[in-house]
Amino acid sequence: MVANTPVLTVDNINPNIRDMEYAVRGRIAIRAEEIRDQLNNGEQLPFKAVVNCNIGNPQQLEQKPITFFRQVASLCENPELLAADKEAIVSQLYPSDAIARARKLMSMIGSSTGAYSHSQGVAGIRQTVARFLEERDGHPADPNHIYLTQGASSGVQSILSIMTQNNQTGILIPIPQYPLYSATLTLLGATPVPYYLDEDSGWSLDVASLEKTVNDARSNGTDVRALVIINPGNPTGQCLSEDNIREIIEFCAKAKLVLLADEVYQTNIYEPEQRPFVSFKKVLRDLNSPVELVSFHSISKGMIGECGRRGGYFECCNFDEGVMQQLYKMASVSLCPNVPGQIMVDLMVNPPRPNDPSYPTYNDEIQGLYESLRRRSKKLEAAFNKMEGVTCQPAMGSMYLFPRIRLPAKAIEEAQKEGLAPDAFYSEKMLEATGVCVVPGSGFSQKEGTWHFRSTFLPPERLFDDFCQDIQRFHNDFMAAYSS
Amino acid sequence: MVANTPVLTVDNINPNIRDMEYAVRGRIAIRAEEIRDQLNNGEQLPFKAVVNCNIGNPQQLEQKPITFFRQVASLCENPELLAADKEAIVSQLYPSDAIARARKLMSMIGSSTGAYSHSQGVAGIRQTVARFLEERDGHPADPNHIYLTQGASSGVQSILSIMTQNNQTGILIPIPQYPLYSATLTLLGATPVPYYLDEDSGWSLDVASLEKTVNDARSNGTDVRALVIINPGNPTGQCLSEDNIREIIEFCAKAKLVLLADEVYQTNIYEPEQRPFVSFKKVLRDLNSPVELVSFHSISKGMIGECGRRGGYFECCNFDEGVMQQLYKMASVSLCPNVPGQIMVDLMVNPPRPNDPSYPTYNDEIQGLYESLRRRSKKLEAAFNKMEGVTCQPAMGSMYLFPRIRLPAKAIEEAQKEGLAPDAFYSEKMLEATGVCVVPGSGFSQKEGTWHFRSTFLPPERLFDDFCQDIQRFHNDFMAAYSS
Repeated sequence: MVANTPVLTVDNINPNIRDMEYAVRGRIAIRAEEIRDQLNNGEQLPFKAVVNCNIGNPQQLEQKPITFFRQVASLCENPELLAADKEAIVSQLYPSDAIARARKLMSMIGSSTGAYSHSQGVAGIRQTVARFLEERDGHPADPNHIYLTQGASSGVQSILSIMTQNNQTGILIPIPQYPLYSATLTLLGATPVPYYLDEDSGWSLDVASLEKTVNDARSNGTDVRALVIINPGNPTGQCLSEDNIREIIEFCAKAKLVLLADEVYQTNIYEPEQRPFVSFKKVLRDLNSPVELVSFHSISKGMIGECGRRGGYFECCNFDEGVMQQLYKMASVSLCPNVPGQIMVDLMVNPPRPNDPSYPTYNDEIQGLYESLRRRSKKLEAAFNKMEGVTCQPAMGSMYLFPRIRLPAKAIEEAQKEGLAPDAFYSEKMLEATGVCVVPGSGFSQKEGTWHFRSTFLPPERLFDDFCQDIQRFHNDFMAAYSS
Repeated sequence: MVANTPVLTVDNINPNIRDMEYAVRGRIAIRAEEIRDQLNNGEQLPFKAVVNCNIGNPQQLEQKPITFFRQVASLCENPELLAADKEAIVSQLYPSDAIARARKLMSMIGSSTGAYSHSQGVAGIRQTVARFLEERDGHPADPNHIYLTQGASSGVQSILSIMTQNNQTGILIPIPQYPLYSATLTLLGATPVPYYLDEDSGWSLDVASLEKTVNDARSNGTDVRALVIINPGNPTGQCLSEDNIREIIEFCAKAKLVLLADEVYQTNIYEPEQRPFVSFKKVLRDLNSPVELVSFHSISKGMIGECGRRGGYFECCNFDEGVMQQLYKMASVSLCPNVPGQIMVDLMVNPPRPNDPSYPTYNDEIQGLYESLRRRSKKLEAAFNKMEGVTCQPAMGSMYLFPRIRLPAKAIEEAQKEGLAPDAFYSEKMLEATGVCVVPGSGFSQKEGTWHFRSTFLPPERLFDDFCQDIQRFHNDFMAAYSS
C-alpha cells in the first residue's frame, strides 16, 4: 500500500550523510555496546568488562574530575549556594577561592547560567582566554577574535563550513587523520586533499611532499585553500618541532593556504624536553606572518578530560573582518555555546595559582594525572613494540598510539572473505577476545598496504598491566591462528 | 602585496552562509549590544537599560531558575557532595529528594558527567523521556527513537540536513516563521516552500491552501517532502486545535509529507480551556497514521527557560530503520549532546511529584511563573490593541506576540530612503527611543504589504506596566512624527 512506504529512505536522504564515515563510534564501537549489554545481562564471555580504547574519554575510565573545577561549576549551577545566608555552611564544603571564582564568573555571565549568552560566548570568559593566550605565546590576543564553542568538533565544523565555497574547495588533511575532518568535508561536499605523514620518521610532516600534493591538486582544478594540522597528532601521537612549524607557516604564506591547527592535545606532551608543545600562533606572530590561522582547543582533552560538557574555543588570526562578521551570523543561528561548557573553558585557562588555597590540591591532581598518563603512554608503546610484526612510533603527545601491524596472508584473506579491511578484522577479533575496543587504522586512512589500529592509553593504572597483557595474548593467539 | 590579501573573503566563502539571515540576533540586536555598552560606560540616553524582547531568554530578564532542578544539577556537578562523609552537611543544604535524584542520575550516567555519553544521549534519560511521552499521549514511546540534543535548534538542523537530498528538496515552512528554518534551509541549499498562516483568523492554518501550495511547488519541479509546523506558534503565538491537527496529519498522509512538529512551547499555553496543547504524536497514534513525524522539545522554553544549557530532544515516529541508523552515524560525529543539558531534560520531563519533599516549592514556582506569564501575555496583547493602527491576535501560547502595525506613508518613505523595511525602521526607532529591542516582522517573513514586529512578554512583572507604557509612548510619538 502506497501510504505505508516511508517518504524518507536511505536511498533518498542527503547523499553526503550516507557517504560519511566515522569509525571512532562506528561498527566496532557499536558492537562493543552490544557486548556491554550482554555482560550486564549476565552472559558469560572470556572477559569481565568492555574497555573503550576507541575514544579519548578519560572520565569514562575512572579518571576523576579536577576538584576545583567541579566545585566552581556546582556553585554556579545553584545560586542558593552563593546566597549570603548560606555562607557559613557552604564554606565548610567549599574553599574560599572556589567561592570567589564562582562569584566572579556569575558577575561575568551577568544574570544566570540559564540565559543564552552572547553568541560568541561570554565576553569576560573570552577575555580570560585572551589573557591565557598572551601568557602562553607572548603575543597579543583579541577577545573579539575568539569564539567559545561546544567542543573543538563543533568549531571545526563551523570553520570548514564557512570555507566551503563549492565542491571544488579543497582542504588538505593528514593521512592518517582524525575522521572528524573527512566526515565533515564529506557532509559539506568539499574535496579532501590527503597528504601523508611519514611513519618511519615518527609521523613527521615533509613540506616538499606537501607542496607537490598542493600543486597536483591545483592542476587538477581543485581550489586548495586550507591545511589541517593536528598537533600533537591524532591518531599518530607525534609532536611537531618548532622548525617544522616555521616551515609549514612559510609554506602556507607562499602557497596561499589558511592554516587550521587542531591543538586540543597541547598539554598532553610526554617528551617535554626533546619535543615541547609550541603553538602555531606563537610562531606565526614571531614570523610576523600574514597567514590566516584558526587554532582549536577543547576542555575534553589535556588532564581535564571534561568531554561530557562539550566546551572549547577557537581563535582566528589575520582573518578578514567581513568574514568574521559572517562567522558571527553563523554562530548566532545556534544562539550560543552551552554556558556550563564556557565556565569550564574559563577554569581550564585560568586555574588556581601558586598562592591560592586550592593550588596544592589542583597541582597534585594535574601532576598526578600527567605523570600517570606519561607512564601509561610509554608502557603501551613498549608493549606494542614487543609484539610480533608490530612497530609503534614514540608516544610524544595526545592520548593515542597508532601501531603498525603486519598481518599474515591468511588473516588478510579471511578479512577479505568477510568484506572487512584486515585491520578491522583484527580489531573485531580483539574486541571479541578481550573486550578491548580499538579503532582500525582504515578508519583514519593510511598508506596503502599498511595496517594499523588506534588505541588510547587511558585504562586506569591499576589495570594497565593486565590491559597490555590481554592485548599481547590476543595478538599472539591471532598470529598463531593465522600463520600458515 | 599579494601575501597580504587574505585567502578567505566575503566573496569566496560558502555562499549559503553569506545568504543566510537570522534577524533574532541580527542588526537591531547587535545595535542593542552597542547601546548596552554605551550605558555601561555612563553615557546619558533617554532610558536606563536595554530590554531584550528580541529573544525568548527568560533568565536574562530576572526569571529565577527552578530550585529543585538546579539543586540536582549542582549535586551532579560536584561528586564530593554525594560522598558519604559529606552527608550531614549536604543534607542541611539539599532536600532528600534532590540528593536521591542526583544519585539516580549519576547511576544512569554511569561514570561521570565529564564522560562522553552515548551519541543519542544517556539511555536512562531517554527512558525517562519515553515515560513522559507515554503519560502525556497515552501511546507507547521507544527510547531508541528519541535523540537528546543540544537544544531544539540543533535537532532541527540535523533533521533538515538528513532530509536534504539536493537543492530541489522542498520543505514547507510557515509564514511568518521562526527564522531558524529559513536560515538552515539556506545553509543546506534546500528550497523553502512558504505557506501562509491566516492572521485574521488568529494565525490559523488552512489545509486547502496548503494543498495548493504543495501542488504548485511540485508542478514547478520542487521535491516537497516535509511540512514544518510550529505549535504553539513562533512568532505568532497561536495554538492549533485538535481538529486542525487531525486535518494536517491526514493531509500529510495523502500528500506524502514528513511532519516536523516544533512543539517547544507546549507548556506555554495561556487559554488552556478553549485551546489546550495537543501533541501531534497523540493525534498521529490516535489515527494510527503512517505519517513520519519528528517532534522537537527543549529545556529553553516552558516555565523552565534553561536556555544557556542547550538541551532538548526529538522523537521520530514511523521512520525507516535504515534512516535511523544514518541519523545515529550523523550524531556520532559530534560525539554527544552536553551532559548537563541532558540532566535538565530528565528533570523537565520528570519533575517532583505531589508527595515528594520538593513538590510544594516546585509547584509554587511553576504555577507562579505560569500565572505571571499569562498575565503579562494578556496585558501586552491589550496594550498593543490599544495602539493607533495596531492589531494583535490573541496570546494563546509561546512567549511572543506579533502585532500588525500600519505605518504612515511618510514613515514608509523614510524607511525606503534608509534602505530598511518599514518595520525594521520602526523597530530601530523603538530601540533608540526606549531601549526595548524587538524583531521586525520582515525578519520572519510576512504577507506582502503588511508590517509587524515580534516582542516577548518576558520583562519582569514589577517593570511590566512601565514597559508597556514605554512602547505606547514611543508608538504615539512615532505616529505623530510621521503623520502628514
